[in-house]
Amino acid sequence: MPYEILTPETLVDYLKSIDAMRTLFSSFDNLEVIEVGDGNLNYVYLITNRDTVTETIALKQAVPYLRVVGESWALTRERMRFEIQALEKHKLLCPDLAPEIYYSSVEMSVVIMENLSNQKILRGQIIEGKVFPFLADHMSTFLANTLYYTSDLYLSSGEKKQAVSQFINAELCNLTEEFVFTNPFEKHETNNYNEELSEKDIDFIQTDGSLKIAVAEMKYKFMNHAEALLHGDLHIGSVMTNENETTVIDPEFAFYGPMGFDIGAFIGNLFMSYFSHGYRQKLFGREPLEYRTWILDTISSTWNQFESKFDSLWEKHQNDKDPLYFDYPGGAADAKLQRQTFLKHVFSDTLGFAACKMMRRIFGLAKVADIADIEDLKERARIERMTLELGKALATQRDQYTCIEEVIELAKTISPLQ
Amino acid sequence: MPYEILTPETLVDYLKSIDAMRTLFSSFDNLEVIEVGDGNLNYVYLITNRDTVTETIALKQAVPYLRVVGESWALTRERMRFEIQALEKHKLLCPDLAPEIYYSSVEMSVVIMENLSNQKILRGQIIEGKVFPFLADHMSTFLANTLYYTSDLYLSSGEKKQAVSQFINAELCNLTEEFVFTNPFEKHETNNYNEELSEKDIDFIQTDGSLKIAVAEMKYKFMNHAEALLHGDLHIGSVMTNENETTVIDPEFAFYGPMGFDIGAFIGNLFMSYFSHGYRQKLFGREPLEYRTWILDTISSTWNQFESKFDSLWEKHQNDKDPLYFDYPGGAADAKLQRQTFLKHVFSDTLGFAACKMMRRIFGLAKVADIADIEDLKERARIERMTLELGKALATQRDQYTCIEEVIELAKTISPLQ
Repeated sequence: MPYEILTPETLVDYLKSIDAMRTLFSSFDNLEVIEVGDGNLNYVYLITNRDTVTETIALKQAVPYLRVVGESWALTRERMRFEIQALEKHKLLCPDLAPEIYYSSVEMSVVIMENLSNQKILRGQIIEGKVFPFLADHMSTFLANTLYYTSDLYLSSGEKKQAVSQFINAELCNLTEEFVFTNPFEKHETNNYNEELSEKDIDFIQTDGSLKIAVAEMKYKFMNHAEALLHGDLHIGSVMTNENETTVIDPEFAFYGPMGFDIGAFIGNLFMSYFSHGYRQKLFGREPLEYRTWILDTISSTWNQFESKFDSLWEKHQNDKDPLYFDYPGGAADAKLQRQTFLKHVFSDTLGFAACKMMRRIFGLAKVADIADIEDLKERARIERMTLELGKALATQRDQYTCIEEVIELAKTISPLQ
Repeated sequence: MPYEILTPETLVDYLKSIDAMRTLFSSFDNLEVIEVGDGNLNYVYLITNRDTVTETIALKQAVPYLRVVGESWALTRERMRFEIQALEKHKLLCPDLAPEIYYSSVEMSVVIMENLSNQKILRGQIIEGKVFPFLADHMSTFLANTLYYTSDLYLSSGEKKQAVSQFINAELCNLTEEFVFTNPFEKHETNNYNEELSEKDIDFIQTDGSLKIAVAEMKYKFMNHAEALLHGDLHIGSVMTNENETTVIDPEFAFYGPMGFDIGAFIGNLFMSYFSHGYRQKLFGREPLEYRTWILDTISSTWNQFESKFDSLWEKHQNDKDPLYFDYPGGAADAKLQRQTFLKHVFSDTLGFAACKMMRRIFGLAKVADIADIEDLKERARIERMTLELGKALATQRDQYTCIEEVIELAKTISPLQ
């Protein structure tokens, strides 16, 4: 059908028109339709048969504008095509870590998927202080599989280039270029500062030459280094979890970019959670040590497991594409060194992107609730300064860290683990 | 008209069917048709009205196979679309350095352009020992303009991404990936060695871990770093010259890749010419010093002028896209440092790609006549070893050179300037 914006009133008739929904729902007579915001861009509905509550779906529809601003900020619905393509790819590469897709329509900018009713958004749960013992394992698997299998290290040259051309996501990339890599680092009208931050705090970032150049380098890499299919927005609000399960959602920013961008997004968000819980745990009447230790362990495990899993995937396939290249005495050791050198660059990128993602959350339009919801503005500013300090160090010295433990130590220097 | 392979017999009727040709030629009754090979892939004809010899054109047609091998090696004609698009872009950006296009047809895989009858292919003229005083000036302008104006440093984010998608030149990129970055560096059946090279000479390259990793890194950068519209095959056989004019032709390998690839192709070819003329000039009964000095001067001038012109273009436009980013006391100096840091990376890439392009011409299928046409195989091997030595040093230590003069010194150490 031609595009129209669905409403709770028109949704049921729309579902009836879809074969897959007539299979899934035994009846459309008593459906519950709940609208749940998914963020800033789209409409999301959870629809359940009240008579048979296992018959339930999530429906997401893109509208031709930025929802959070309104119709004045036009945004094409093409983003839903990228989201559908990426969800399908994730499901293939990480079947346990991506939602099941029941139906999709590029024309209607709709995707209908499983209602993950037993999982919740990770950010909210981390704010509440919940622990997820499998999170690092799951996220490192997601990162290793999606980044390795969509790159030139695995795909044929032609397959990779075709994939790049299917994911030229200009409009949403442009949002990232502006709101992650540019505006927060200059005196831009879209910025939004905690009033307890001083001019000096702001200039610490916005007028520091080394940092400005480092951020511009990361932005250039984001725009030019088309090495793997990224989720593109992998903060902890794009992950759903329960104690045993993890699901990555909302890949509408998907495009071919530098691997470190996804890893850095996830890790950078966890560092902000680490800083925030020095305060939040006390609000809960708890000693912060235990929960903050879990956050830092999750950061180091995510990187270390990613590195190990990615290396294993690569090693397993390294000779498939070109059996001759390292076929000489000592060649296997050289191949190993190649993988290590490559992963060193991905690590540097990861730190640089984590840094940009952290700093922009302090000055830019889009905040993280972990920090921005702290009502005591002086306390919030203290945590914001920690974030800026870590961000600046990681962006400017990203090539100098040799392992994630060194970065953890720096975070602990900035905010002692207690 | 639907695609058919033109022949000297069918060419004239084809030209008659084109409006632009009926304007250009006052008569089709007495045309001279000369077939001139342009290399390995296509057919090229020079067509002149014998009665009015100023009425003359060059016509290039792609055939659906690799001409040098025959119909068994299929190659889509899509490459002509890339060549036409790139020629048009070059003409816009460097009107004096690109041929004038009279007509093109993607359907027929044909481009008709000016017959540069007063210019000859640069490689042949360098082999003969001719000097071109404006070559470095012209080539540095071509490189600065084509690389700057097609990059994110100038274009809007959306324009750049659209351009990338118009130049996904998978098939010809794959040829480069195989024949420049892979096969020459392993025991591959397509390689072709001078019989005077020893196993040790070959292993000096093919089993050296540092070099193999460096070449793999350059290949990965070639495949992933989509920063500017490249010519893609800018050796000295893709340039036509006379004493005053320079024209860059044959951009069918055009794609979005790393800037250093084009610069390195040109410079790497000149280093091979430098090595070859230690011998060739003596064959001509001349002292090599003067001509070899011109070659080295051309190399250093090409890089230094490129660097300066690129920096000027960038500086001129730096505030257009984002006037706020460096708008603070000291910001202009930071912006300058950003440009310098960027160009340092381009320089490193240039050396790495020059190195790969040199080494592949020694072991790989496609040779350069400068060296491969030397009949004394021992002398040829001596020059080939020099090329391999320079190539290996530049590939593995590409980050350590701070200016082109240091590289020139290295070349002079390998083959003293005399």
